[in-house]
Amino acid sequence: MKKTLLSLSISALLLSPAVFAKDFILTDVADNTEVANWKVTSDELGLKDAPAFTVTKKTLHGGKQEGSTLITIDAKDLQVSLIPTRGMDIYEIKSGDVRYGWKSPVDEIVNPAYMNLEMRNGLGWLDGFNEMMVRCGYEWTGHPGEENGKLMSLHGRAGNTPASKVTVSIDETAPYAIHVKGLVKENTFKLSALETWTQLTVVPGQKSVKVHDELTNNSDYDRDYQIIYHSNFGAPVLEEGAKFVAPVKEISPFNDYAKKGLQDWQTYLGPTKGYDEMVFNLIPYADKDGMTTAMLHNKAADKGIAISYDTKQLPALTLWKNTDTLKQGYVTGIEPGTSYAYPRQIEREQGRVKTLPPLGRQAFDLEYRVMTTTEEVSSVQKEIDTITADQKTKVTTKPIAKE
Amino acid sequence: MKKTLLSLSISALLLSPAVFAKDFILTDVADNTEVANWKVTSDELGLKDAPAFTVTKKTLHGGKQEGSTLITIDAKDLQVSLIPTRGMDIYEIKSGDVRYGWKSPVDEIVNPAYMNLEMRNGLGWLDGFNEMMVRCGYEWTGHPGEENGKLMSLHGRAGNTPASKVTVSIDETAPYAIHVKGLVKENTFKLSALETWTQLTVVPGQKSVKVHDELTNNSDYDRDYQIIYHSNFGAPVLEEGAKFVAPVKEISPFNDYAKKGLQDWQTYLGPTKGYDEMVFNLIPYADKDGMTTAMLHNKAADKGIAISYDTKQLPALTLWKNTDTLKQGYVTGIEPGTSYAYPRQIEREQGRVKTLPPLGRQAFDLEYRVMTTTEEVSSVQKEIDTITADQKTKVTTKPIAKE
Amino acid sequence: MKKTLLSLSISALLLSPAVFAKDFILTDVADNTEVANWKVTSDELGLKDAPAFTVTKKTLHGGKQEGSTLITIDAKDLQVSLIPTRGMDIYEIKSGDVRYGWKSPVDEIVNPAYMNLEMRNGLGWLDGFNEMMVRCGYEWTGHPGEENGKLMSLHGRAGNTPASKVTVSIDETAPYAIHVKGLVKENTFKLSALETWTQLTVVPGQKSVKVHDELTNNSDYDRDYQIIYHSNFGAPVLEEGAKFVAPVKEISPFNDYAKKGLQDWQTYLGPTKGYDEMVFNLIPYADKDGMTTAMLHNKAADKGIAISYDTKQLPALTLWKNTDTLKQGYVTGIEPGTSYAYPRQIEREQGRVKTLPPLGRQAFDLEYRVMTTTEEVSSVQKEIDTITADQKTKVTTKPIAKE
Repeated sequence: MKKTLLSLSISALLLSPAVFAKDFILTDVADNTEVANWKVTSDELGLKDAPAFTVTKKTLHGGKQEGSTLITIDAKDLQVSLIPTRGMDIYEIKSGDVRYGWKSPVDEIVNPAYMNLEMRNGLGWLDGFNEMMVRCGYEWTGHPGEENGKLMSLHGRAGNTPASKVTVSIDETAPYAIHVKGLVKENTFKLSALETWTQLTVVPGQKSVKVHDELTNNSDYDRDYQIIYHSNFGAPVLEEGAKFVAPVKEISPFNDYAKKGLQDWQTYLGPTKGYDEMVFNLIPYADKDGMTTAMLHNKAADKGIAISYDTKQLPALTLWKNTDTLKQGYVTGIEPGTSYAYPRQIEREQGRVKTLPPLGRQAFDLEYRVMTTTEEVSSVQKEIDTITADQKTKVTTKPIAKE
Repeated sequence: MKKTLLSLSISALLLSPAVFAKDFILTDVADNTEVANWKVTSDELGLKDAPAFTVTKKTLHGGKQEGSTLITIDAKDLQVSLIPTRGMDIYEIKSGDVRYGWKSPVDEIVNPAYMNLEMRNGLGWLDGFNEMMVRCGYEWTGHPGEENGKLMSLHGRAGNTPASKVTVSIDETAPYAIHVKGLVKENTFKLSALETWTQLTVVPGQKSVKVHDELTNNSDYDRDYQIIYHSNFGAPVLEEGAKFVAPVKEISPFNDYAKKGLQDWQTYLGPTKGYDEMVFNLIPYADKDGMTTAMLHNKAADKGIAISYDTKQLPALTLWKNTDTLKQGYVTGIEPGTSYAYPRQIEREQGRVKTLPPLGRQAFDLEYRVMTTTEEVSSVQKEIDTITADQKTKVTTKPIAKE
Repeated sequence: MKKTLLSLSISALLLSPAVFAKDFILTDVADNTEVANWKVTSDELGLKDAPAFTVTKKTLHGGKQEGSTLITIDAKDLQVSLIPTRGMDIYEIKSGDVRYGWKSPVDEIVNPAYMNLEMRNGLGWLDGFNEMMVRCGYEWTGHPGEENGKLMSLHGRAGNTPASKVTVSIDETAPYAIHVKGLVKENTFKLSALETWTQLTVVPGQKSVKVHDELTNNSDYDRDYQIIYHSNFGAPVLEEGAKFVAPVKEISPFNDYAKKGLQDWQTYLGPTKGYDEMVFNLIPYADKDGMTTAMLHNKAADKGIAISYDTKQLPALTLWKNTDTLKQGYVTGIEPGTSYAYPRQIEREQGRVKTLPPLGRQAFDLEYRVMTTTEEVSSVQKEIDTITADQKTKVTTKPIAKE
């Protein structure tokens, strides 16, 4: 029983002065390990020549969060929390006094044991949705729909799958990058053998969180996959007059309701009763390597968050404007993906469902940068302007599909 | 990690002789607290001038009750157990050698982690049903039905929702009333933000359990609610010749099958193979404040249980006669509610689905009194007679709705 | 709280030199007991006049196996593991360097708390399927289907039900047979009161695992039941040229796809891409007591496993050939049952759904023998030949039913 194991590996480490950085295994089904509570600091590791940091894991208690786990990296100018029991989703990022994430009516970090994704005709996912970033995939994603008589519930399973192996690794040399890796398995006899090694990296002192995921099709057959990196931000960055900035090549409304939002799709309303949500399907311009950047910044342009990613991996970009009231969950989603949010059957018809061959792998790389000054926002604005250059945005007023 | 925390607050308390009563937090998601096992006694608290009591919390193990919790108040002439992990439902009351509750084939206190409410086309709730009182609501209640293509499963979610905050409070002055409060959240992004603070109160020395619940619509939109306080009693109070007594203004059969039960709806059969269940829809008379009382007593009228409640809060009363065999679950339900047990769509058509405005609150007050002598039963009978006065019961032989 | 209880009963035992064997209670909902980790050895018990053994229980951690439990008997020439939290299913048997069981893409022992059996229109069971033997029953079994508007999900609930009482008993006299008993309840108010006392027995030194299950209908009504002992084996016994040997009276293909497999139904292919599965419905010959034996052996006929069972209890035998690729789950199932794998409605139409009267009991007896030498395989072959005598196999080329 390793459930209550104290971190013996650290103690052992400290006896050995030459070792100054290390891998820590926090979860491992193969070794029957789940460390309930754990902490390591740069001090304990003897890392003096770089900004200090702490990495903590705790197990949560009470209500529907009983048994959930949370890992927090607390470094200079940046704190980030992720949820091993929910597919390594990112719960929130903080920098200074700014929180990047949002306030959902779902205010607990729900243990998937209490979830029923097929509830309400496939909307069960909404009972647990409150993360800054949820992996919506990989076997399927999008709005609920049926294929071959089987319900594909909203946004897939990965975000409600407890990780099977979780490690924290710290580089041996300055600046001592911290990597949290987690293995998320979507394994079903006959039907699915998609396994994703997720990785989140923070370099102490940098205001950036990097995600590098590797999806593998462990089966001997071609297997479809879909993924949306559902990245969500509310106040204080989101506010009346906040702006979405990206090098947009094409935009179209997700449905008829979003048509009227085309006129001011780049700016946000404050919390607006009755707004519900408007969704737009975007294709961004990218640089010569296929990289692009999208940003949300507040009205004063002195706070923001940027997502940079590889459009070759994630060609579709969904912009989800859910500027309803605060209590309803005032939030916008910037969602790079292989697909838009239509049910899988529609995505398939339109050619956006991808396929991995046997043992095929696909990486997904994203970087979240937080900006807390005018200069930082302005700098990202320039990056985006450079990608856009003088290229136009093609606005299509008719939705590309009907649900 | 506070999971195994001993009750430090008590120890601290005892050092301070002036303090003699206290709040204890047993569950709190906001503070990551879930006390696994705990106990406090009136002796430890130095309360000598009133009947002695003990309050205990334990975590259950084995089978499908793994991880369930149970709080028991043991006071003079009354013991009551409630289930924080199942919406603060009341499991049973005992007084002397009489148990108030029933024997269900479901003989474990099921952790909702093992439940699937949508199973069997919405009858999953039956896999956990064995409580003396279950809160059937609040987002919906009643028999399974579909609204807008979404299945509303039998009797809603509250009774299968683990409480997010649980406290035990003991009054500072005699008679030292004991209050167990629990917060039950039905929160779903976009769809529901109903939160209920439940409260159960026992005054040591009194044979009464008071329930005071406050439902709040935490959303910014009007939200429907329904609630049935599904209160269930089997042997020994229920027996052949046992009686249901209430000031009944109107009664009608729930369905065609119950029609033939109208002739003797006030008395009960012994365990009867093939009886299944007969359900009746009642409207009770009330006193000038809207309060009414319904009672079940045994044949000899020397054991009984009374439920007094506010008909302005809970206008509908369902009488559920399930006098099937003992092993099948010989039980009757006395069920004050806002609704009868029809699917939500029918309740809506008939105008019984209530609505709360944004931040609207609704209280529900019920008192369960246990009677273990002829005098006690007789006294309640007089109360009911006083409410009835000379008013007649209107018997309608046709069901008001068809499922 | 008995969750972390050390095995006090052992210590007490050792003080009493006269006592040399014992019952150990590892799970008991009635006594709120769930021993998380436990071990007993023949040495501790002072049993010197027979082969040594160890019995261990551990609680598993990480991923979807968090909270699962595993009991392992390690005796001379035989190790067997079973899963209390999954209906006492047998995970695997090992003898020497041979493992009996299979490699499923589902590589964790999934806690039923993470399961949703109704997922994918009733195929949720596939998310947890990796056992050497799963009890598919008892309320229903077979492929998903609807009866009276209710989905009967694939292969029932028993295999995903945590046992409510688990004991390890060791005989008081040599050869000190070890019995692991577990109570699996399928209890649902009004609908089901089927309880099964499972028992697995190992005699140290023997290469055999006996199963003796007793199903009781605890209700006062006739209740249907179905059971398939889904027994599954992959490499190394299963390989190209491996053989299925049984005294087969009748065989027919489960569906049209299996028709073409009739020509070589007794031999196996190696891992074969695109094979998927072929299923055959068999009726075996039996000896005068109704006992029969089926065997799988490898190509060289020096490794095998035999299942002997009572055809009066289990008249139907399903042969499931799933010789798809290794990663897809290369496996064959030898599945004695009351039913074939058609949905319950079809099984009912064809008269194979059994009924138990009130308090009726039905025992099921099976023995798994592992063979690791040519002589052992040859000996079982002779047993089977004796049952077959000169009787023919009737091959029916048309499936008996259409799904």
